[in-house]
Amino acid sequence: MIELFSKKRYVMKIGIIGLGLIGGTIAKALNKKHSIIAYDIDKNSLEYAKKEAIIEDYYLDIDTFLKQNSIIYLCLYPHQIIDFFKVNKNKITPNQLFIEISGIKKVLIEQVNSLNIPNLNIVYSHPIAGREKSGVFYSDDQIFKGANYAIIDQQKNNSEDLDTAFILAKDMGFKNISLVTAEEHDEVIAYTSQLTHIISMSLVNSFDKNINLTHFTGDSYRDLTRIADINISLWTDLFTQNKEYLIKQISSFQKQLEYFKEYLEDDDIENLQNIMKNAFIKHQNYLKDR
Amino acid sequence: MIELFSKKRYVMKIGIIGLGLIGGTIAKALNKKHSIIAYDIDKNSLEYAKKEAIIEDYYLDIDTFLKQNSIIYLCLYPHQIIDFFKVNKNKITPNQLFIEISGIKKVLIEQVNSLNIPNLNIVYSHPIAGREKSGVFYSDDQIFKGANYAIIDQQKNNSEDLDTAFILAKDMGFKNISLVTAEEHDEVIAYTSQLTHIISMSLVNSFDKNINLTHFTGDSYRDLTRIADINISLWTDLFTQNKEYLIKQISSFQKQLEYFKEYLEDDDIENLQNIMKNAFIKHQNYLKDR
Repeated sequence: MIELFSKKRYVMKIGIIGLGLIGGTIAKALNKKHSIIAYDIDKNSLEYAKKEAIIEDYYLDIDTFLKQNSIIYLCLYPHQIIDFFKVNKNKITPNQLFIEISGIKKVLIEQVNSLNIPNLNIVYSHPIAGREKSGVFYSDDQIFKGANYAIIDQQKNNSEDLDTAFILAKDMGFKNISLVTAEEHDEVIAYTSQLTHIISMSLVNSFDKNINLTHFTGDSYRDLTRIADINISLWTDLFTQNKEYLIKQISSFQKQLEYFKEYLEDDDIENLQNIMKNAFIKHQNYLKDR
Repeated sequence: MIELFSKKRYVMKIGIIGLGLIGGTIAKALNKKHSIIAYDIDKNSLEYAKKEAIIEDYYLDIDTFLKQNSIIYLCLYPHQIIDFFKVNKNKITPNQLFIEISGIKKVLIEQVNSLNIPNLNIVYSHPIAGREKSGVFYSDDQIFKGANYAIIDQQKNNSEDLDTAFILAKDMGFKNISLVTAEEHDEVIAYTSQLTHIISMSLVNSFDKNINLTHFTGDSYRDLTRIADINISLWTDLFTQNKEYLIKQISSFQKQLEYFKEYLEDDDIENLQNIMKNAFIKHQNYLKDR
């Protein structure tokens, strides 16, 4: 897709459905080069975003919005995406491109496909960046700078639509933009994102002594629990819709914990140090690749 | 101990045995107010520290060092502390105060006690701050600013020695300085520090797909794996000497992971969301207390 960067670039008119944290951040990142029009059910969010120049303008009426926009970011929680298409499936035109941005793919794509939506062109993608806050008020396009973005390689997408999603991700500031299958995406995200959030919450929940914890924590505890402040509604969707891969990842992680426990119980210093060395080397390689 | 702060403060001459990351950082933090003299077996570290004004001066000979210093920070790994006392136990004088700073206490104190060292006054303490690097070259007294410090409340310490450890911790920049028993310390540290490191390493070790991970990670993965770069020799001491509490903490954490897995398997949304809410509330309370 590299050659596309040398093509003449136009200012595009881009619609955003759902002006929450990620919708707002996409708007903020793209509104510098392009013209961003938003739709949301919350007028406060829209007015705030317009006042702050996060968006160019907005519609409160979905029909007008859909008529006025040909490239549309769908920034809703997975279950809302299905609700949205159920209600609006017959208003979609063949010259429109939807770009979806949630954190899970396989089940969502199956659900959307089962709706048999006429005229739907949709690219599924995932900006792998976020904050432990929700709402357009916390929009911060710095979180996209140098971050990762995944685009789902579906046989039925035409390459022009994939290219559009790719170019706009570059415009937002993303660095590594990967084309992967829905399964590959969901499996690796179950590990890098979903398991990490489950670890963070489980860590918080696993201690119940009556002691002022804040006096006994260092950076490591603060770092590992930062993401325990989860958006419950969003993550319920993400966890349950990716439960197969997620359960496998939790099990694989549990096995590693079990090794530590066994080697400690057996005073098996050699094996204890071997897993420490393994982690060190794997993590060094990870840092080197970045 | 508060009234001590109003007492006239003197510049103290303070010795440091072991000029690694923490020894060097203590030196750096205290050398602004006091006069720091170091002992180490590595001459490079000592010369670097003198050149950088991290210390005032150093001795390469332990006998001279011990004769010249009355307040001595013992900045060695736990097993080195025992080795040190075995060799030098008869050179210690009754007017000396040792302040020990490692990350575990109960087993270490038992081991030191079993040596029956004549004249030994020692306060066990733990600056709860560190970096994923070792050596005096990475000394950075900013890591102590606002951080936590624990002092072990042993019946046999006199209050003047405890006060000295307390005042010097304040001088280093520590904010919350707690007096706890060795058991209380080891139990909470098994959770806030040791379990977190085991989680980080286990997370790194639990994925083995042939995929460029760096293209699919966000801040959460980077935060949770930061501390996987462990100092293997140091942490072998810390883990094995605190294995009882640590094994309990790993088990308690495993139970929490098991809940997630069960509720996901059973599509039990209500309970899934309950543990997410619990974590959210507990973490908010933790942040409020800080």
